[in-house]
Parts: sequence; C-alpha cells; structure tokens
Amino acid sequence: MHYKLIIKTIAILQLVIAFFHLVCAGVAMYYGETEALISFAVSISLLVGIGGFFMLFYKNTIPDNISTKDGFLLVALSWLAASIGGSLPFYISGAIPSYTDAFFETISGFSTTGASILTNIEGLPLSILFWRSLTHWLGGMGIVVLAVAILPLLGIGGMQLIKAEAPGPTVDKITPRIAETAKYLWYIYVGFTAAETVLLMLGGMNLFDALTHTFGTVATGGFSTKNISVSHFDSAYIDWVITIFMILAGVNFTLHFRLLTGRFKSVTKDSELKAYLAIIALTTIIITFSLNGTVYTSLADSLRFAAFQVATFITTTGFATANYEQWPYLAQIILFMLMFVGGCSGSTGGGIKVIRLVTLLKQGINEMKYLVHPRGVFLIRLSGQTVKKDIVYAVSGFFFLYIFLLLVVTMIVATSGVDVLTSFTTSLATVGNIGPGFGMVGPADNYAFYPDYVKWTLSAAMIIGRLEIYTILVLFTPTFWRR
Amino acid sequence: MHYKLIIKTIAILQLVIAFFHLVCAGVAMYYGETEALISFAVSISLLVGIGGFFMLFYKNTIPDNISTKDGFLLVALSWLAASIGGSLPFYISGAIPSYTDAFFETISGFSTTGASILTNIEGLPLSILFWRSLTHWLGGMGIVVLAVAILPLLGIGGMQLIKAEAPGPTVDKITPRIAETAKYLWYIYVGFTAAETVLLMLGGMNLFDALTHTFGTVATGGFSTKNISVSHFDSAYIDWVITIFMILAGVNFTLHFRLLTGRFKSVTKDSELKAYLAIIALTTIIITFSLNGTVYTSLADSLRFAAFQVATFITTTGFATANYEQWPYLAQIILFMLMFVGGCSGSTGGGIKVIRLVTLLKQGINEMKYLVHPRGVFLIRLSGQTVKKDIVYAVSGFFFLYIFLLLVVTMIVATSGVDVLTSFTTSLATVGNIGPGFGMVGPADNYAFYPDYVKWTLSAAMIIGRLEIYTILVLFTPTFWRR
Repeated sequence: MHYKLIIKTIAILQLVIAFFHLVCAGVAMYYGETEALISFAVSISLLVGIGGFFMLFYKNTIPDNISTKDGFLLVALSWLAASIGGSLPFYISGAIPSYTDAFFETISGFSTTGASILTNIEGLPLSILFWRSLTHWLGGMGIVVLAVAILPLLGIGGMQLIKAEAPGPTVDKITPRIAETAKYLWYIYVGFTAAETVLLMLGGMNLFDALTHTFGTVATGGFSTKNISVSHFDSAYIDWVITIFMILAGVNFTLHFRLLTGRFKSVTKDSELKAYLAIIALTTIIITFSLNGTVYTSLADSLRFAAFQVATFITTTGFATANYEQWPYLAQIILFMLMFVGGCSGSTGGGIKVIRLVTLLKQGINEMKYLVHPRGVFLIRLSGQTVKKDIVYAVSGFFFLYIFLLLVVTMIVATSGVDVLTSFTTSLATVGNIGPGFGMVGPADNYAFYPDYVKWTLSAAMIIGRLEIYTILVLFTPTFWRR
Repeated sequence: MHYKLIIKTIAILQLVIAFFHLVCAGVAMYYGETEALISFAVSISLLVGIGGFFMLFYKNTIPDNISTKDGFLLVALSWLAASIGGSLPFYISGAIPSYTDAFFETISGFSTTGASILTNIEGLPLSILFWRSLTHWLGGMGIVVLAVAILPLLGIGGMQLIKAEAPGPTVDKITPRIAETAKYLWYIYVGFTAAETVLLMLGGMNLFDALTHTFGTVATGGFSTKNISVSHFDSAYIDWVITIFMILAGVNFTLHFRLLTGRFKSVTKDSELKAYLAIIALTTIIITFSLNGTVYTSLADSLRFAAFQVATFITTTGFATANYEQWPYLAQIILFMLMFVGGCSGSTGGGIKVIRLVTLLKQGINEMKYLVHPRGVFLIRLSGQTVKKDIVYAVSGFFFLYIFLLLVVTMIVATSGVDVLTSFTTSLATVGNIGPGFGMVGPADNYAFYPDYVKWTLSAAMIIGRLEIYTILVLFTPTFWRR
C-alpha cells in the first residue's frame, strides 16, 4: 500500500478545501458576517497547517505504480477526509451545534445527496449556506471524474460499461489519461454552471441564489438556501431551467463531450441515454395526466410540476417545488419507483444507474430465450456493442448488494421507532443519494429528528451509495488486507 | 407442440378436481347444505362431462418425447385450467357472486397465496370453505412436485440448484422418474397432513377446523375458516403446532425424504436449510425482544406471537394470530423484509427462496474478491458443492425480473388509488404468494375492495409468482412460438 501517496493526496485535498473556504470567507466579508468569517479563518488555518505539513513532508512522493488497492483506499479516505475538513465551518461557527449533524450535513453535501438536518435553513449566515452548496458542487465534480476516469479502471460493479475514451491522446499510463479526461469534464461542468447561473439570473434570481441553486442542480445535490426549496421562487421559468439542467446533469458527461466535439451519432445510439430519456418522458406524461384536473387546473402547470419532480427524483437531486405526498397515489408510486433508477453512469446522479437496469433487463429477457433454446448463444448488446459476460455478472452482483444494503439500512433506521414507509424511503433516499423520501422524510421534512446513531448510519449509507458500494465494502474484506 | 397430450393432461386434471368436489359434496351432505350440494353436483357434471370427453378422445395419446416447450405450456395451462374448474362451486353456489372474485379466490388457493376477497368467511357453507382450503392443499402438492421434479428439468431461474435426486431407481426416462419422485413427496405431504391434523385435534379443534387449517399450513397457503384467522382459537398450543408445521412446510421436501431415510449428514450440511433456520431464529429473537414489555407482558407470549408471525411471513403462509400493524415499527420492518425472502426451494413456500438469496449474497461477496484479485478464481459453494456460473447467471436474472415484476404490479395496483405502502405490499404479497401485507391489505383486511382489473392483475401476479416467473413469461416471448 502506498500510504505516503495516499496521505499526500488527502493533504492536497485539504488545501483545496481551504482554498474554497477562502472564497466563502470572501462571501462572509461581503455580507459582513463576522462570526462566520472567523470560523472560516480558523478552519483555513487548521487545514493549511495540517494539510501543508503532510504535503511538504511527502513532497517527493511521486504518483507512480498505483495499485488497484491503493485506488480503493484513496477514494474512500478522500471522501471521508474531505467530509471532516468540510464540516469544520459548520461546527466552529456554531451554525450546526452538534458535530454529528455537521458531519451528516457535509457528507450529504459532498455525496450530492441533499438530505438535511437543518430545520431553519434561512436562519444561517449566507456564507455558511454558500459553503453548504459548494460541497455539492465539489462533490459532483469529484464523482464525475471518479465515475468516468477511475471506477472503470477499478472494475467496480460493471462500471467498465462506460468506456472512458480519453478525449485527449490515448496514453497507456493511467495518470496522464485521468488528468486529461478530468480536464475536459471540468470544462463541461464549469460550462453548465456558468450557463445555468446566467439563465437563473435572467429569471430574476440574485447572484447568490442563482449560484447556490446551480451548484445544487449540476451536482444533482438538492440543497437549497430557502426553507421551502425551489418553490420559494414560484416561477415557471426558473422551474423549467432547473428541470432541464437536472436532466442534463444526469447524463453521462462523456456524452456531453462527444456532443461538443460533433460526434452526434455515438450519442444518439447510446442505449443508456435513450432509456433515460424514455423513462423521463413516459413517467412525466403519466404524472402530468394524474395531476391535471386533480391537483392543478391547467395542463401547463401539471406538466411543469410533473417534469420537475420526475427530473429531481430520477437524477437523485431532491429539490422540491411541490408537496408530492399530497399528489394522487399513482404519481407518488411512480416517484417512489424512480428512486430505484437514478441517473446515467458517468453523471453526477446517484442510484442504481440506468445502464445497470438496462443490462439486467436484457439479461432477464435472454434467460427466457435460454429456456427455449438451452444451447443457444444470446448476447447482450448496449449502444451497438456486445457486453462481456463478466461485466453482466458484476452488474448482477451490484444490484443484489444494493438491495441488500437498502434493507440493512432500513432495519437500522427502523430501530429508532419510525414507520415502515419512512424507514424504507430514508434508506432509499440516502443510499441512492436523493435526499427527501416519503413519510417523515418527505419534501416538507428533514432528517433532524433522527437520533445520532441513525445519522452516522445514514452518513455511511450516503458515502457507500455514492462510491458505488463496492469501493467502500471491499475495504472490509479480509482479502483486501491480505498481502 | 404436443397439444393433444396437453389437452389430455388438463382433462385428467379436471377429473381429479371433480373427485375432490365429490369429497366436498360428501361434506355438504353431512352438514345438510343443500345449495352447496347442488353446486358441487353441477360442477362435477360439467368437469366430468368435459374432462371425460377429452380424455376419451385422446385416450391413445402417450406421454412420450415431451419437449421443454410442452413442459412450460403444460404447467401454465394446468394451473389456469385448474383455477377455472376450481372456481365453479364458489360461483355456482352463489357463495361468491362475482366471477372475478370467485376466480381470484380459487387462484389464491391453488397458488397457496391465501389472499381473500371474502369479508365474512364464517357466513359461507362449511363444504364451500372445505373446498376453499382444499385448493391450498392440492396446489401445495402440485407445487412441490413441480419444484422438485419438473422445474429443475426445465432450467427455470436456477432451479437446477435443487438436485432432484430421484429417491427410487435412477432411470433416464423423465416420466417414470417424475412419477417415482412424486410418489415419495406425496407420502411425506400426506404424512405431515395427518400428523398436524391429529395434533390440532388434541389441542381441542374439531375435525373440520383441524383439517382445513392443516391444509392451509402444509401448503403454506393461509386460508382460514375463521374471520379472525388462527387467533380465533386463542391457544398457545395450537399456535405452536401451526408454527412448527409452517416451518416444516417451508423446508425443501427432498430434505424431509433424506431425513426419513436416515441421511442426516446431507441434511445438516444443506446451505439453504442452515440459512433458513438462521433467519428464522435471528428474526424471532429480535421481534420477541421488541414485543416483550411493549405489546405482551410475558416473554412466553412475546416468543409465541413473534415465532408465529415470522414463520407465517417467511414461509409465505399468511395466517394471523396478531395485528402486527400495531407492533413496534422494528418488528414490522422485519416482517416486511421477510416478505422478500420466502421459503426454501422445493417447499410449498413462495417468494424469492432462500437458496437464491444465499447464492446472490455469495456472488456479491465474490465480486469484491475479484476487485482485489481481478485474475483470481472464486467459486460459489453451496452444501459443499460448486455452483456453475450459468446457474448463478440464471439466479441473477430471476432476482432482477422478480423486483421488476413487483414494481410493475405495484404501479398497476396504484392506479386504483391506494397508497404507496398498500400498493407495494399488495404486490409483494401476491407475487410472493403470501396473502396479507400492510396498509389496506393488513392482517385484519382483505382484497374485496379492489376493482376488477386489479383483481385480474393480482390473479396473474399470483400465478406468475407461483410458477417462478419464467414459466409464464417465457410463453409471451416470440422465441417460444417460433418453430
């Protein structure tokens, strides 16, 4: 294990967080929030002190010959260390008095979940809220790079299905290739951020609200700076802008890259994208008709709220424009089912991911063909290419572990005395990085009421779900630690 | 396709049903239920007339050279035809005035589900109730023979995991082997029936109640002749007898055979049995402690009701001795989770089946080992034997289709305007052949309120779930009908 390299990388990560705390300190200064300013100063000192020390100490360690094992440990510890470093301003400023809560909120941010323990969001200093939304943005960027460039190399749960297809020169060395891929993904991510911010400001939002809600959108996070989330703005234009950007953020970012470089054909024949858009279209239509005449009087309104809620659930964002728990049950069930789907692979969305479900469905159908022709050969094709059996195998393993994890978390949540629907959707909303669920964690509720042990469990659930389960669980196998 | 043979077999099946209607006619005579007696006479005439005609017409058709395709069609049509023939007395006697309801109740019986549309069970003639319980018993026998002797040959969803291991001389010809296996299974099944009936009568039940509740137990069905199910008898002794026989009925019947022939070792090393008993023990302990001091004052009572409810859920029986919806949420969640498990393969229990879950869990763990050692070879061993990769593949396909089917049924149920918990557990309770669920289909409720289209959907769900999904779905693939 290259412990030195791992420590060095984490140290650099703390310096990156310190840099963004500096930005937030600027926000605090601008709004004259003294206490917040001090807390950012303290956290910057701590992070720069500790991070800088380790970085200098290991400054000659070169990222060479990284093993797969190093990769797993690095990814897991990075997310954990970032959440500890990121929680400092919340805790030091007293904005979130309990450390459990501060950690929960931070990991909810970095994992782009958006489950919150805050009961009165608008009571917090704006600079603290800015940092809260920034955790989404940084986590979203991290996950895209991870999902597109690193996880396929590690072979996690069929993530090889995404062909990293380095947009730059194809080099064999891993590191430069990751760096090159990451650079292009970064451009696209920043581009989306800029575009949505401008569009939201054109809709009447101020820069602060536009930026923070953009962070929550492009990262499919869901933290809002308003107590009643996006419904605060009560604008069809804003709803549609966010809906469209949520859907864009749920698409594999390599497809965005291909679009930008004019390779339309490889995009239009992408099986995952087609399934993703088909699900969105179909469920939006059904929900629109179930809302029209019952909850909303105009078709335009029904479509607007249906599309927003479908987008926020399938992409696992978690913004709210309506209390969907008062919608017809059919609409609720469809939203509930979308919680199992998630975005596309290589996007900022969480959940099981569309490509896995498409793979499994095709495999299920193939099994029927085998029943009729036991000696036949039936292949699974995705985006025009044959999927190797080993990958299908890995996807099946992932799917089962996902469901298994859901049930384990559900059971732990239930020990705190909440009902069946609440505990199951709490599990679904955290493992799937969605945020709100049904019952006591509905769109108008929050996670504040859970006892500490549940919050720690859910924190673990969010990170395990975010890192495609295996990345974390593998660390707990004896095989991993055996030489 | 050997249509003649299929028609002949179904014709024989109708004669078998007619024979049991004759038994019920005897019951009707004994209790002096004239209307019921007439309806049995009418249904016997119809079944003997039609069944006898086709049997004589095809009397020279010999069951030779049956193809796999014939097998699928035969199994599916047999269950369907039996349900039509079996529904006659309910409908003709006027006991169940709607034909949709009569069909639903019959298929619920034959599939050993136990979901009922009756609102006042005790208002029905005893002979009709006797037939209702008999459908369980016949369906249970059918499913054991099917699961142990036929499905593994058809290669359904990993059912090859059960080694049929013909207890008689091992012949290559399929038909005599099935017949031989069936005979031994039949002995065990009848033995259990006799034993439980006697034990229940020793507990103070009359012959009628003892027999009908035994039918519901050994078939893991769940129909009771009492409005408030087994809680009617209010006896710890009766509860324990039924609990033990439910658990026995949920065990692979080939294991019972091995036990009877003294092969203890092959039973004690059976992976599925060990997991099944471990789940029962663990969940019973947790629920007992969650009930003790909150719902019941004595530990003995807590254990009694916990064990009964765990057994009734995991074996997918569906009897009730308590309104578990008033239990602590933790206990409810555990019961909810047991709905996903089901009994052992080769038992009368429904659900996903323990062996499939064990296989998938082992595969999920293996995938983690592959992440660390991508070129390693990790095998899945069950009961000391290596499982072929193709079988694991089939099991994965089954699991996904099962979850997918659950969600499709949930959505159709939800269109009738019931809440999320009700629609999801209605789906779970019918696809898994359990019977009661949560919400509006809880232990104190029934399925009467659903509109007809939902009842037909659930009828289909019960039969699809009972026949391990693939047996039915394969009939709807173009591949099946292609020459």
